Amino acid sequence: MLIIGELINTSRKLISEAVENKDADYIKKIAQDQINAGTNYVDINCGTMIFDEVETMEWLVNTVQDVVPVPLCIDSPNPKAIETGLKLARYGQPLINSITGEKERYLEILPLVLNYHAKVVALCMDDNGIPETAEDRMMVAKNLYESLTKAGVSEDDIYFDPLIKPVSTGDKAGKEVLDTIKLIKQNYPNAHMVCGLSNISFGLPNRKILNQLFMIQTMTMGIDSYILNPLDKSMMGAVQGSQTLLGNDSYCTSYLNAHSKGLYV
Amino acid sequence: MLIIGELINTSRKLISEAVENKDADYIKKIAQDQINAGTNYVDINCGTMIFDEVETMEWLVNTVQDVVPVPLCIDSPNPKAIETGLKLARYGQPLINSITGEKERYLEILPLVLNYHAKVVALCMDDNGIPETAEDRMMVAKNLYESLTKAGVSEDDIYFDPLIKPVSTGDKAGKEVLDTIKLIKQNYPNAHMVCGLSNISFGLPNRKILNQLFMIQTMTMGIDSYILNPLDKSMMGAVQGSQTLLGNDSYCTSYLNAHSKGLYV
Repeated sequence: MLIIGELINTSRKLISEAVENKDADYIKKIAQDQINAGTNYVDINCGTMIFDEVETMEWLVNTVQDVVPVPLCIDSPNPKAIETGLKLARYGQPLINSITGEKERYLEILPLVLNYHAKVVALCMDDNGIPETAEDRMMVAKNLYESLTKAGVSEDDIYFDPLIKPVSTGDKAGKEVLDTIKLIKQNYPNAHMVCGLSNISFGLPNRKILNQLFMIQTMTMGIDSYILNPLDKSMMGAVQGSQTLLGNDSYCTSYLNAHSKGLYV
Repeated sequence: MLIIGELINTSRKLISEAVENKDADYIKKIAQDQINAGTNYVDINCGTMIFDEVETMEWLVNTVQDVVPVPLCIDSPNPKAIETGLKLARYGQPLINSITGEKERYLEILPLVLNYHAKVVALCMDDNGIPETAEDRMMVAKNLYESLTKAGVSEDDIYFDPLIKPVSTGDKAGKEVLDTIKLIKQNYPNAHMVCGLSNISFGLPNRKILNQLFMIQTMTMGIDSYILNPLDKSMMGAVQGSQTLLGNDSYCTSYLNAHSKGLYV
């Protein structure tokens, strides 16, 4: 199970203010807090800084690495910002977020995956957008899998993201994602799967509860990585409890640790 | 989704006191509360009343039916008590809890299923006890399925219970149940599946949280009926939210109703 801490994202007001004020202490605190809460990868996303995203990426990556020696998830729509992050990433194997089946995006990101020997999030979408059905998402995943592995990317470095649409906009939005996970796991048992969760609950009340339910459902079907807020104790408790019930916790040790850390209050 | 309300069970102190005092008002209130909370079947279990189980069953069934016109789940180790409940059951199709692959039990319960045209919970155990692995549980389910359908029981009236063992006594206890559900659903897509949840968390802290996580996991794999406490708002909220995410809630109507009823506070 890989937890990617999502908090260092300039779409969050406190982060964008810290970036504007060059408040390194705040960024370092958020990085450290996420690691203390069990994060494996720290996501760095400054996609909202349209005019100086590359400089911001450089500052954030250096600032975070000053305090936590962990691998980073370099998250951007902009290949230049991604490359800047990858160049500076010093710990472990970085994760690129993301490549897609869109022709232009694919051709821009593939060289970065190869040159920096990075792991990569592969979104199940192409130039026709996000498919509605599980079968069509599986087709996009198949094309991505075949191109990426042919280019030399190892199956173990691919993190498929099935892409979640809000259940408020279509009754089967969740079901199609669960079926997509099943198909991808059947076909590529050694590839990984990742997702963010908040889209599922868009437009509905009690969003935290729906997000958590969908985390548990998707993990049951085979997702093994999440981009989430690791400071949300209830979510992290549900992640650990789910792992325990799925048979991935010898003698319930991690569950009992999570209990004694107060994740289930 | 079938919710079987578990509260009328003489192993619960307040119920056994009400039975001893012939406090019909308390039993009626618990029956009515369960129905108001969304219960489809009311479980009646007086298995602790060893010396007068049959008389108690008669009184409980009549008392409950005085106030709620719903089908009952007649739950007993004692075939005589089950038959007494079935004779008196006036509303809908009763559910017998339970038949097993144990030779003696099977032969005692089968005539009741047939004579009263009842639905039946079929426990995945036989004279060798509860199997450890999913494959072995599936073998017991297969034997039960073949015998029951050959005897004339409709697939739609069979509710397989995979039987949950505590994860504290074996790391794979949860995983084997999830795999059992997958196998049974693959082989008998029109049969139903049911389980109680509390065994999974035996011996561990935060039991309510683990029970709820396992409800969500088992429902994701295909369980469509639960024996549970319908007055537990958090559990019932999780049941409805899970159904919504699984694609069984047109326009999220039931989810929004659950929200306005306060299930997500």
